[in-house]
Amino acid sequence: MKIIPGGVTAPIGFKANGLYCGIKKSKKKDLALIFSERMCDAVGVFTTNKVQASCVVINKEHLRDGRAQAIIANSGNANCMTGESGFDNSRSMISLTAKLLRIHSKDVLVGSTGVIGKPLPIKKILDAVPELVKGLDRDGSELAASAILTTDRAAKQMAVEFPIGKRRVRIGAIAKGAGMIHPQMALNPPKHATMLCYVTTDAVISHGALRDSLDRAVQKTFNMITIDGDMSTNDMVIVLANGTAQNEKIVEKTEEAREFGRALETIFLNIAKAMIRDAEGATKFVEVNVRKAQSREDARLVAKAIASSNLVKCALFGSDPNWGRIAAAVGYSGAHVDPWKIQIYLGKELVLKNGGRVKKKTVLLNRVFAQKNIKIAVDLGLGKYSATAWTCDFSTSYVRINSAYRT
Amino acid sequence: MKIIPGGVTAPIGFKANGLYCGIKKSKKKDLALIFSERMCDAVGVFTTNKVQASCVVINKEHLRDGRAQAIIANSGNANCMTGESGFDNSRSMISLTAKLLRIHSKDVLVGSTGVIGKPLPIKKILDAVPELVKGLDRDGSELAASAILTTDRAAKQMAVEFPIGKRRVRIGAIAKGAGMIHPQMALNPPKHATMLCYVTTDAVISHGALRDSLDRAVQKTFNMITIDGDMSTNDMVIVLANGTAQNEKIVEKTEEAREFGRALETIFLNIAKAMIRDAEGATKFVEVNVRKAQSREDARLVAKAIASSNLVKCALFGSDPNWGRIAAAVGYSGAHVDPWKIQIYLGKELVLKNGGRVKKKTVLLNRVFAQKNIKIAVDLGLGKYSATAWTCDFSTSYVRINSAYRT
Repeated sequence: MKIIPGGVTAPIGFKANGLYCGIKKSKKKDLALIFSERMCDAVGVFTTNKVQASCVVINKEHLRDGRAQAIIANSGNANCMTGESGFDNSRSMISLTAKLLRIHSKDVLVGSTGVIGKPLPIKKILDAVPELVKGLDRDGSELAASAILTTDRAAKQMAVEFPIGKRRVRIGAIAKGAGMIHPQMALNPPKHATMLCYVTTDAVISHGALRDSLDRAVQKTFNMITIDGDMSTNDMVIVLANGTAQNEKIVEKTEEAREFGRALETIFLNIAKAMIRDAEGATKFVEVNVRKAQSREDARLVAKAIASSNLVKCALFGSDPNWGRIAAAVGYSGAHVDPWKIQIYLGKELVLKNGGRVKKKTVLLNRVFAQKNIKIAVDLGLGKYSATAWTCDFSTSYVRINSAYRT
Repeated sequence: MKIIPGGVTAPIGFKANGLYCGIKKSKKKDLALIFSERMCDAVGVFTTNKVQASCVVINKEHLRDGRAQAIIANSGNANCMTGESGFDNSRSMISLTAKLLRIHSKDVLVGSTGVIGKPLPIKKILDAVPELVKGLDRDGSELAASAILTTDRAAKQMAVEFPIGKRRVRIGAIAKGAGMIHPQMALNPPKHATMLCYVTTDAVISHGALRDSLDRAVQKTFNMITIDGDMSTNDMVIVLANGTAQNEKIVEKTEEAREFGRALETIFLNIAKAMIRDAEGATKFVEVNVRKAQSREDARLVAKAIASSNLVKCALFGSDPNWGRIAAAVGYSGAHVDPWKIQIYLGKELVLKNGGRVKKKTVLLNRVFAQKNIKIAVDLGLGKYSATAWTCDFSTSYVRINSAYRT
């Protein structure tokens, strides 16, 4: 597998575009479009929040037939809790896009991200769609990636190429996410996101294999990051597979499906980590490894409890190696734990063992927490399951950013 | 029911004391004692965190016979995750106190609050116990209340008096709590606190009535407040009832038991609100009312999700009436909700109805969120159950306080 340039337009047969249509006060790009020349197999995972934006509700309908060909998305407004007219507005975006692309409305998906509860300035959007469609380009990924950002400092895109049989296939993605990040996304219907991630691939792949790969990769990556613990109403990851690579069809439970899954997971992990590095107000990047849990779910619960703890995150901000807060989070995670068996490592330093501290020089621990990249590891000493979560510190800047996001 | 002075020493037959023994760098009081001249019926609720301080574990043992006569508590060190020696230290505090008070060790309870994982300076404590016991006084409640504080700005105590039959009975309490506050306390064994609350009463009351009253009052008060979402390893509420008021015994499910329960709830609510007003870095006091939920549990889930949302709390800090974040929290609360039926009020202003905003002048909503006391109400439109939670805003000061708590 090799990393290639081009984002969502790296896979053959995809075009993209992004422009400023007038939603954002900052006058930054706020409207994006991704289009495949051929019909795609399409799957999506969506927020499990029960309050869902119209884009989430409509996409679930449109994906029922497992097909789609275009995604139009705006930033600067979530079009959520905007009543019936919110739904009408999402549908207007879809139908004009479909008309200009000469495809069916039900093959167009829609995304929105930004403030909740404010009517979408639909006229501005519709006025810009013709130019958006006209500008679709094989090199348009970066424009699209920029146009879906909100408080993000940098655009997020990535593409990889790898062999399937005698052919080479490509997967590309663009994403955004810097606040209201605590994704818990699931297939629809859910087995188990404010982040958007749009993925394209030219692989020929069965719907089942695409679904499995997406679900598995999301569980281990996006669903294991947290910035502020607030699950969004608009989270979605959508994959469009147009089959132009002409490889032998990838089907479920084969080595090729696993290869495709690994490639997808590589992209998601890379983007998930980029979201944490770009998190609102973040000054540190933190990886939490949990091992020897009784079940995978327990490992995930503990990793996410530590990653979500405000007190742990304030300690990280202050470079204060207060591991007692980590122990408290392990205890309230909901997982099965035995306090006497918990081991806690800050970096490589073991600090808790047999229910009590392992005395270390304060200066040594301070040094670990003063770094920009910090690893916390917890060994539960009970079973064989592991999980990793990623988070950032909780800074005074985060509070400042989020105390005046709307106004 | 009338409010009377005296805290835990307002009920007849109780004495208290508090002093500085050397734990806190600030040289503020850090060791407290409450003592009843007569044996008490005693019940407690404790943190449901699976990592529990030795004081929590030992108190559960000591309360198995439903009796106790004294409580010794230190602040500045949680004596949690301090290994076997942590347990030995808690037991040393107990046995010396018992010896000097000429009572059994199993009738002494112990409490600790402060940093987790640091060995307790037991010699300093034991050296101070004789003076602590010697200074026990009918007017010692305030000293004891001061000695259990950590980051609290003010001591918390309250007492009430009310008639039971022909007699007057009294309930008094002292408490602390300003950070790591997200109590979920339960009777042991648990049906369902970093806060300490010690309660005394001179009422004659059956063990069952005392248990019921405590559990019910805690569920509606302490378990409905949150400051930072982090559940402590040391939370506890203990009630000592010494029966000196000589009232006719209060038994379960009588009007007298309900009267006692209401008095206890009044004290707990007052103290719980005081904890929020005194919360680390808080600039605002926020009440979240949820009504018309399908179940009591659903009402509680929604109220606590809003009260715990970092984004809602940042918006409160910034006086930014971003109610979309409230809607998102309702959606991820885990409760059964229908987005089209949710109504959200900021103060008296209805802002969400029929899935979309009710347009209000921005200046009007800004005014609501600029106040020091804010009410948020959510009507789920589904059932008949209600719940109330209390919280504070999330300030840059909170982050500053908690980024350097230990060092």
